[in-house]
Amino acid sequence: MPLAPVLARIDEALPQALERLMDLLRIPSISTDPAYAADCDRAADWLVADLQDIGFAAEKRPTPGHPMVVAHAEGPEGAPHVLFYGHYDVQPVDPLELWQRPPFEPALEETDRGKVIRARGASDDKGQLMTFLEACRAWKAEHGALPVAITVLLEGEEESGSPSLVPFLRENAAELSADIALICDTGLFESAVPAITTMLRGLLTEEFTIRGADRDLHSGMYGGLAGNPLHVLSRLVAGLHDARGRITLPGFYDGVPELPEAIRAQWQGLGFDHAAYLGEVGLGEPAGERDRTPLEMIWSRPTCEVNGLWGGYTGEGFKTVLPAEAHCKLSFRLVGDQDPEAIHRAFVAYVEGAIPADFTVIWHDSRGSRAAQMETENPAFEQARKALSDEWPRPAAYVGCGGSIPIAGHFKTLLGMDSLLIGFGRDDDRIHSPNEKYDLESFHKGTRSWARILAALA
Amino acid sequence: MPLAPVLARIDEALPQALERLMDLLRIPSISTDPAYAADCDRAADWLVADLQDIGFAAEKRPTPGHPMVVAHAEGPEGAPHVLFYGHYDVQPVDPLELWQRPPFEPALEETDRGKVIRARGASDDKGQLMTFLEACRAWKAEHGALPVAITVLLEGEEESGSPSLVPFLRENAAELSADIALICDTGLFESAVPAITTMLRGLLTEEFTIRGADRDLHSGMYGGLAGNPLHVLSRLVAGLHDARGRITLPGFYDGVPELPEAIRAQWQGLGFDHAAYLGEVGLGEPAGERDRTPLEMIWSRPTCEVNGLWGGYTGEGFKTVLPAEAHCKLSFRLVGDQDPEAIHRAFVAYVEGAIPADFTVIWHDSRGSRAAQMETENPAFEQARKALSDEWPRPAAYVGCGGSIPIAGHFKTLLGMDSLLIGFGRDDDRIHSPNEKYDLESFHKGTRSWARILAALA
Repeated sequence: MPLAPVLARIDEALPQALERLMDLLRIPSISTDPAYAADCDRAADWLVADLQDIGFAAEKRPTPGHPMVVAHAEGPEGAPHVLFYGHYDVQPVDPLELWQRPPFEPALEETDRGKVIRARGASDDKGQLMTFLEACRAWKAEHGALPVAITVLLEGEEESGSPSLVPFLRENAAELSADIALICDTGLFESAVPAITTMLRGLLTEEFTIRGADRDLHSGMYGGLAGNPLHVLSRLVAGLHDARGRITLPGFYDGVPELPEAIRAQWQGLGFDHAAYLGEVGLGEPAGERDRTPLEMIWSRPTCEVNGLWGGYTGEGFKTVLPAEAHCKLSFRLVGDQDPEAIHRAFVAYVEGAIPADFTVIWHDSRGSRAAQMETENPAFEQARKALSDEWPRPAAYVGCGGSIPIAGHFKTLLGMDSLLIGFGRDDDRIHSPNEKYDLESFHKGTRSWARILAALA
Repeated sequence: MPLAPVLARIDEALPQALERLMDLLRIPSISTDPAYAADCDRAADWLVADLQDIGFAAEKRPTPGHPMVVAHAEGPEGAPHVLFYGHYDVQPVDPLELWQRPPFEPALEETDRGKVIRARGASDDKGQLMTFLEACRAWKAEHGALPVAITVLLEGEEESGSPSLVPFLRENAAELSADIALICDTGLFESAVPAITTMLRGLLTEEFTIRGADRDLHSGMYGGLAGNPLHVLSRLVAGLHDARGRITLPGFYDGVPELPEAIRAQWQGLGFDHAAYLGEVGLGEPAGERDRTPLEMIWSRPTCEVNGLWGGYTGEGFKTVLPAEAHCKLSFRLVGDQDPEAIHRAFVAYVEGAIPADFTVIWHDSRGSRAAQMETENPAFEQARKALSDEWPRPAAYVGCGGSIPIAGHFKTLLGMDSLLIGFGRDDDRIHSPNEKYDLESFHKGTRSWARILAALA
């Protein structure tokens, strides 16, 4: 089955593919907010229908949270079997007032650097997952068949910690196992350089409240005498890093490997311009560990970041309150063999040890996943790398990724598969921020890339 | 004009007095929130009508903010002239979900320790100011006259920094000057011990935002490399106090006097039970300066408290965002000759010096007032103390107050008057907190106290 007519069909049918993506983007499938549960369900239904339309046997599968979408299509006799993974849920949209258009009313916009699709989820991950579905559609439409056997797994809880994922993989291990997994939730290295991500950081999230008095107090009547939870929390956060930017939790760096010399050399060769990378978001100074390169900071070093912190009076005007509570959401990015369980215990001990005797800590939630490192000896890696290099102006690179895609670790541990992490996002896609976008070129060449990769893996 | 029938009339007319207070409490006159501007105006109108009803020549006087209420009533030939001050505005009510009843639907509730009036403003300051108006009403009703000449000044911006007050006092200095000011916005020392407050802390408020990147970032893509405003703000807050609880701003303690030995001895004699005071709000440990007594901490030492702090994702679930901004509302209580201007400058220099080179600070608002110390040699102090001692089970005490009532300083500086700070609030009134209340006994005996004080000053 020749590839060329499949690519030609993708080029021709781009307007229709874009219409389908816009339809999916109109569904506000915010998984973390219970108010949008019905919308998550609707997004799953939409995808089941679309997969059936392509020719998959597809269905929505219930979980205790949002449903999974599972679909199967046969390949030629003896062809390999791949599992494709993407997620149809999206991040919340606040602060809403910073969006230049409503986040769930997608539009194609002209920019200096070409056309972009603007909406929440355009890049993370609806636009990305649709590149794969459109590649399958083109193969089926052109040849009536796919070059490999394909199982599709689309999750609806990726942006809210994937609580149902591991049980679902365990219960359906036989059905979901394949020769290799394809995951489309990462980015290009730069505009002309596609990437296969072979190193992913893990993630440990912590949510807690520090409680002092049993009510908000008047700072004139109690200030200076009663403990202030915002002071306690500030000291606690300030104490998590030392003056050199290292994280102070005892045992935190256990299992953190030094970068192998070969990888360090390859990364130096990438010519990463950290001043441009930071400058693009209005910053100038690397703020992490003093003795590490910027690329190490985001790809191969562990981090600790406060993602949300609040307490006291936050409205208009002033209120001289001494708050009863201070709240914190904080996350660690993990690398190498760092153990999320051990770090969670060390963090709890640190917080409990840092509060005054008359204060309490309320622990709300904690979720952890380990870092992952791919086995690039699997020939599928070089096959995919060559297919990507054929599509894009410059050869594909093996890269690290600062983000956490726990699914790759789960596929390895629970289903015994390696994962090819290939995506077409760009650093300026504003994922998780207002005004998220996906370049039309990412969508178009991404679809063509998958068409090529499916042929290469056959 | 005998006092006894005035007191009897107050006892008899208590139900009607309570009805009037409830009417006033139903008006949500939150001065700091522009959404309630019309309600502030309505509260002023209500008071003008009530003062006219008592027999005052009363009117609402415009300011650039919420209006002032000014009223005059003659006294007997040669009698002294007093200026009474109170405020009709109230604090915001959030967190609303912690109120056991709607904050602006007042009710009389039975408790273990007697009846209480429950509503926002019940104690601070509507209930308190009405004790004075009810005392005047009883005098007028009984004798057709007041024992002294009285001017009433009721402000509507006390809970939002009193921006219009100083200009108004300056422009109307002749009209508002009297022999002495009476201010009803403080508390009893304890249930059976009334108090005249002779020492008040000043207040300096600061509101600012620390800005890093020009948008919220994905902590996986930027965490560990880009600066986090919540970390910067936490370090900055943590650095404001040293390990002994002292405030670290250079020059902060300039002008802070040591407590005179006589006052220290008198305060020791009060037998302040800090364990009970803190225990009542669920706390146990004094959290302030190591080498100071708890009463010093709240009455005579300066403080620095964060009143509100927020940034990043604060909603349901988790969002691995690296926020662009962190926000802070913070206030200093000042004593002695501390200069709010100088401390503001030191604070700005501290913050600007503490942020990374690629961060900015946006300064929103700052307001300052000095501490005040009354001249108790004025014979009105002993006259009032005796009148209070006649009404309550135990003799009245001269005390300090941790709160800031800048008006006392303004009366001294701008109008050349001392102030008698007398009020009937209790430590458990939950002012500025959910479920604010005022004891019916405070309201009733407070009214009787003012009736006695007016007689004593005559």
